[in-house]
Amino acid sequence: MTTPPLIALLTDFGLSDAYVGTMKGVILALCPAARLVDLTHDVQPQNVRQAAYLLATAYAYFPADTIFLVVVDPGVGTARAPLAVAMGQGRYVAPDNGVLSYVLAEVGGGRAYALENPAYRLAETSQTFHGRDLFAPAAAHLAAGVPISALGPALASLVTLPAPRLEMAPVRIDGEVLYSDHFGNLITSIGRLAWDGPETLRFAPRFGARDGAPEVLCAAACQVWVGGRAIGPIRPTYGAVPPGALTALIGSAGQLEIGVNQGHAASVLGAASGDPVTLVWA
Amino acid sequence: MTTPPLIALLTDFGLSDAYVGTMKGVILALCPAARLVDLTHDVQPQNVRQAAYLLATAYAYFPADTIFLVVVDPGVGTARAPLAVAMGQGRYVAPDNGVLSYVLAEVGGGRAYALENPAYRLAETSQTFHGRDLFAPAAAHLAAGVPISALGPALASLVTLPAPRLEMAPVRIDGEVLYSDHFGNLITSIGRLAWDGPETLRFAPRFGARDGAPEVLCAAACQVWVGGRAIGPIRPTYGAVPPGALTALIGSAGQLEIGVNQGHAASVLGAASGDPVTLVWA
Amino acid sequence: MTTPPLIALLTDFGLSDAYVGTMKGVILALCPAARLVDLTHDVQPQNVRQAAYLLATAYAYFPADTIFLVVVDPGVGTARAPLAVAMGQGRYVAPDNGVLSYVLAEVGGGRAYALENPAYRLAETSQTFHGRDLFAPAAAHLAAGVPISALGPALASLVTLPAPRLEMAPVRIDGEVLYSDHFGNLITSIGRLAWDGPETLRFAPRFGARDGAPEVLCAAACQVWVGGRAIGPIRPTYGAVPPGALTALIGSAGQLEIGVNQGHAASVLGAASGDPVTLVWA
Repeated sequence: MTTPPLIALLTDFGLSDAYVGTMKGVILALCPAARLVDLTHDVQPQNVRQAAYLLATAYAYFPADTIFLVVVDPGVGTARAPLAVAMGQGRYVAPDNGVLSYVLAEVGGGRAYALENPAYRLAETSQTFHGRDLFAPAAAHLAAGVPISALGPALASLVTLPAPRLEMAPVRIDGEVLYSDHFGNLITSIGRLAWDGPETLRFAPRFGARDGAPEVLCAAACQVWVGGRAIGPIRPTYGAVPPGALTALIGSAGQLEIGVNQGHAASVLGAASGDPVTLVWA
Repeated sequence: MTTPPLIALLTDFGLSDAYVGTMKGVILALCPAARLVDLTHDVQPQNVRQAAYLLATAYAYFPADTIFLVVVDPGVGTARAPLAVAMGQGRYVAPDNGVLSYVLAEVGGGRAYALENPAYRLAETSQTFHGRDLFAPAAAHLAAGVPISALGPALASLVTLPAPRLEMAPVRIDGEVLYSDHFGNLITSIGRLAWDGPETLRFAPRFGARDGAPEVLCAAACQVWVGGRAIGPIRPTYGAVPPGALTALIGSAGQLEIGVNQGHAASVLGAASGDPVTLVWA
Repeated sequence: MTTPPLIALLTDFGLSDAYVGTMKGVILALCPAARLVDLTHDVQPQNVRQAAYLLATAYAYFPADTIFLVVVDPGVGTARAPLAVAMGQGRYVAPDNGVLSYVLAEVGGGRAYALENPAYRLAETSQTFHGRDLFAPAAAHLAAGVPISALGPALASLVTLPAPRLEMAPVRIDGEVLYSDHFGNLITSIGRLAWDGPETLRFAPRFGARDGAPEVLCAAACQVWVGGRAIGPIRPTYGAVPPGALTALIGSAGQLEIGVNQGHAASVLGAASGDPVTLVWA
């Protein structure tokens, strides 16, 4: 028995309207065999960068051949192209606004097509809900076996998001808070650190065009700062400090993260997306 | 291979308790082949009209034969009948409180049955969670092939919601805000407008008993008002105005809608459900 | 045709990040046939007792052989054991922090295994997201047919939560508010009451180690108090009092519950988890 096609959905539609459910109805009407998984629908409205980050942390955990349907689309109804992209082991359906660029920076390659073939849209297309009328049908047709090149003409290049702030010097790295997660943990732009025991951290850039930068080694005795506040060294997990205490750690996506053991770091620090984060190991 | 039965769920149970998950457990215990899709579970508690509207915007996008399980039920445990209705291409399981009336106004016909057959309820039936004990089992048994007429006796008529405010005059239409969606867009009772290019809008009533009213034509130079505030003409999409600016447009369900490009109209206007909306084209 | 394996998920991860979606990707990569149902992901962060309660109200409604994947894990990365437990008709994957103890108190028995076999973890295991790296893989391997004893060594005993407050005297029962649900109904620790008509209530302890206590009978003319406020007798359903009025009733999980007809009892009473609740029938 073959495995049914899998579509993973990521939007900023929220779950309080019927928008996401309606997209799923459209998909199942076109491809009854499709399986559907929600990545999240609670991206901050129109926050393309947050969606790009979440997608980049999740895609590699899905089965090969997963179709990612990503609709965070501040430009709905304007000239931005709707597209489908084959890259790595997956296919992605999204507006051309940079939301795929962090994945693209990791997996490279990619063949993109504009969703222009009217055969693979709904018959009536609104100006405000391309998720339902263009993107969901494209994902469903891919799931049903339509080749990606049939969806429309190839595109030579994609819109790319600017990389998050990340400046590497011999004894420090400057970055920024990307966002605060459900637990109030602050996810930062300083990433791809690996914890190799008590002595060393390895660092390499991620999420964008900073190609070729070498790995950096830093002592575990490094200090982390958020804004003007010293957080202390990087520890292995939240439980390495007492309940209520702040700590820096390497989060599950490989990013430097600030958390509070059994607490909410974003509230404790009053920190928000864009705040400066510094890692110093001199 | 036949397509497995599809059940779409719409409730006001929220997702913070285990109520929705428990309903799904009940369904899968009775009909393991059923596929489940959430329309939404974040209807404002006991807001039957909002649920009726959301269902009316979504049902037509689902596969034929979908079973809609709709539990917004302020009268749980009282005399209101639990029922199953076959109408259009779908079947609907819901309390008899008007929550199906906007769909019924669109598709017409309908055969309704009271959920009285104890064979298709759980053995123990609580007074407060008919979603689990009555409605989910009925939907599951329908999905498993039980004929709708086996669920209980036929009902001659259903409770109908009053239609939202909608008054049509030669050069104006008066309506009301139905609700604010996740993006803060104000969805109004003025609907079934079609955008036929820059010159004309067509209008016809929807959502209720205002039968036989003819189509109305209005110039695109019409003005939209919310409360005492002028919004301007109807434009094709949010992006037709600068970021932060208000605009009227025809939303994805065919209703007149007030939005802010990349912003939150409900907050900008301080508007809420029931506020007057006027469209004038003299 | 055999029924595909069912995994029910219960976490405190929320739905605003990609954490839950990523766990689902991991499961479907390891066991493509698995079916996934969400119990809830909005347990209050790190509230093990709330999760234990929700699981105890839901498990019995699921098909036999359901795998429950429960990740509310304040101790992630510390010495608490990750485990899999076979008990009753289901299997449970969870941290050893008491989150399974209310189910265990009901179904008894249980064979527990520590998730130590590296073959059934992801190759790279983070310190902060065992849901993705340990628990989801274990559930997926169970769903794919791996015997539970292959996951690791047997454990002799499990961590048990203290039972909620519950003191039974000849003419009164003292308990506490467990939590407030989505509707603002206050769910209490006074449970397993059955409504046998207007005259009597039967009571027996639940959720913990208060073994052997006999059933208690009380007249329906009993009075319920929350803090210092008299709520009145236990009534069959919300609709037995006028809209806006408080009432006590037996909730759908068999617990004494305080609600407001079409309103929000937690707000009306300003009550919270841990507040005293008393039932007096002298």
